Amino acid sequence: MTGNRFRVLYEDPSSSARIGIYETDRGPVETPCFAPVGTYGAVKAVPHETLEAMGFRLILANTYHLYLRPGPEKIQALGGLHRFMAWPRAILTDSGGYQVFSLARLRKVTDEGVIFQSHLDGTTHVLTPERAIEIQAVLGSDIAMALDECPPYGCARSDREQAVRRTVAWARRCKAVHRRPDQSLWGITQGGTDSQLRRVCTEQILEIGFDGYAIGGLAVGEPKAEMYAAIADAAARLPRDHIRYLMGVGLPQDVVYAVMQGVDLMDCVVPTRHARNGYLFTREGPLHIKNSRYQTDPDPPDPTCDCPTCQRYSRAYLRHLFMVREVLFTVLNTIHNLYFYCRLLHEIRTAIREGSLPSVYRFYQDRYGPDALPAET
Amino acid sequence: MTGNRFRVLYEDPSSSARIGIYETDRGPVETPCFAPVGTYGAVKAVPHETLEAMGFRLILANTYHLYLRPGPEKIQALGGLHRFMAWPRAILTDSGGYQVFSLARLRKVTDEGVIFQSHLDGTTHVLTPERAIEIQAVLGSDIAMALDECPPYGCARSDREQAVRRTVAWARRCKAVHRRPDQSLWGITQGGTDSQLRRVCTEQILEIGFDGYAIGGLAVGEPKAEMYAAIADAAARLPRDHIRYLMGVGLPQDVVYAVMQGVDLMDCVVPTRHARNGYLFTREGPLHIKNSRYQTDPDPPDPTCDCPTCQRYSRAYLRHLFMVREVLFTVLNTIHNLYFYCRLLHEIRTAIREGSLPSVYRFYQDRYGPDALPAET
Repeated sequence: MTGNRFRVLYEDPSSSARIGIYETDRGPVETPCFAPVGTYGAVKAVPHETLEAMGFRLILANTYHLYLRPGPEKIQALGGLHRFMAWPRAILTDSGGYQVFSLARLRKVTDEGVIFQSHLDGTTHVLTPERAIEIQAVLGSDIAMALDECPPYGCARSDREQAVRRTVAWARRCKAVHRRPDQSLWGITQGGTDSQLRRVCTEQILEIGFDGYAIGGLAVGEPKAEMYAAIADAAARLPRDHIRYLMGVGLPQDVVYAVMQGVDLMDCVVPTRHARNGYLFTREGPLHIKNSRYQTDPDPPDPTCDCPTCQRYSRAYLRHLFMVREVLFTVLNTIHNLYFYCRLLHEIRTAIREGSLPSVYRFYQDRYGPDALPAET
Repeated sequence: MTGNRFRVLYEDPSSSARIGIYETDRGPVETPCFAPVGTYGAVKAVPHETLEAMGFRLILANTYHLYLRPGPEKIQALGGLHRFMAWPRAILTDSGGYQVFSLARLRKVTDEGVIFQSHLDGTTHVLTPERAIEIQAVLGSDIAMALDECPPYGCARSDREQAVRRTVAWARRCKAVHRRPDQSLWGITQGGTDSQLRRVCTEQILEIGFDGYAIGGLAVGEPKAEMYAAIADAAARLPRDHIRYLMGVGLPQDVVYAVMQGVDLMDCVVPTRHARNGYLFTREGPLHIKNSRYQTDPDPPDPTCDCPTCQRYSRAYLRHLFMVREVLFTVLNTIHNLYFYCRLLHEIRTAIREGSLPSVYRFYQDRYGPDALPAET
């Protein structure tokens, strides 16, 4: 715990959106902010210098993956995650819990923690709240997350209640063992789309007290309308003077929507994963580069975009690279999609000051609404 | 045919090495030069802007691959290969013959040309000298190569004689149909490691007359000593006032050796393919990043190197990326290895002026000699 490092600079009088700054030991992060996902300590296919040039100041790294490979001791021996990765700007690590629940084999969850088998080699590991904090302390991220239990959408109410109970108990244990003075610790609220459970969980998490608050347990398969209602409900329960982080969301209109509900930070694999699958984000909507209409199309992916990819390469060339499975395709496409999110967040911050967020939301909802993109797998 | 665009600027008094300039419509190329291989119109994993920043002014593209995908009509519709690829600098295309002989299925070679089945989908295609020139004219490369027959090492003498006979006849037909005034046409000598056959072939190719001359049919499996003898023999038979291009070679010491025999240009997949397989070229010799000794090594791949990879990333991090199969590994490693070749050629050009090529050769022979690297596959 390092105290509250968040400052609100401007509040939208017509929504819950705000502009702010989150200070880290590695520089300030402007909010609203979208953090790209650097699963293994790398944002897939993109050199760090390119991320920096695009303006990214905070990336997320997955504790579960880094714990398994190369392992926290190796990273510690190299001076921590920043030096290991050669990324001198801010890093947020998750607790590892989400991947344990979604990737690992043969999980056994008790009040103590989770016993799981690695999805790589079947070796058995134990993740407790204390261990989650210990690993993140070793990694040395700027922002560590408390261990939570994220139940699947549609599970029994008793399971959801148990998940909330455990999330709170684990959060308390996380805070009790957290020591690093240069690392913030953020709590997570669970409760899925159940407003009453979310309320109970949030009250208890706030009572424990953290440097920032995350909304967990959404974007796990629930209908979009339920997710939207839950985002509004969950965000409104969080204090105005602390940063609010919505985990794992989302499409452009979801980002705008969440900001309107008072969310300050999001992360999602949407831009990077869709890039690898051949979907380019443009102001006209998603462009599936595989479509044969692009075979002789000399235009850049998005003629309004000034990213390095759009400044040089045509749809026809990118389609060709995609069809021949040339790895340069992944590089160029990912750069473009991440840049699209950079511009999106810039547009959002401008729209907050201009009071025009609703029209920004409609713009992207019209272009990235239902069935515009395949479901994430 | 555009005439001789090569100028010798300096000749090493103690070897056959020379420094020169090859003028193209897209700028001059300094020689000795190493051209990276852009198989599908892309040097695997590396954005063009990075290649340009490293100093590459000429890249090779494979006619066979581009002929099959996306096809010459598509490239023509987009204004030719330079515009299609968004590479405004010089491009050399091969004739497609080498891949037909090494990749295609069910080849049938006659004096007329080659009938082959695509390695992708089994469709039947015909490559004649006229067609090879037509495709390259459509692509619009700066330098086109005549179609040759490249027999495997160790084949019967009658096969080798037939290959030389066809290579000469095909070269004559290529020259007869070549029209583009902005595209140079280079001839290729065959003959393998047989000095007498090479002599016969070279004499006839020179009699036909081309804008540049390539040494083909080496680095196809023959022992290194035989290849070295053949390079010296083949290069010495080529005129001093034209550019000499050794195809498909090679390791750093091979490059230095060939330059000492009067070779001006080489291309090879060595730096890019080894990069993907985890081998980094350094001044201490090849570094196999998979080796566990690099797990906690904070040094850059080559502490003497100022490439973007060495300026930022450690061996430990690159090893991690390699072990988790992160695509960023391919990007960073390929950039490093290509930069190594940039430096190598710079070192060679300096050594020519200083008369110190033999010590440069010994330096790399000591570090990249037998068994230093696995055989190319």
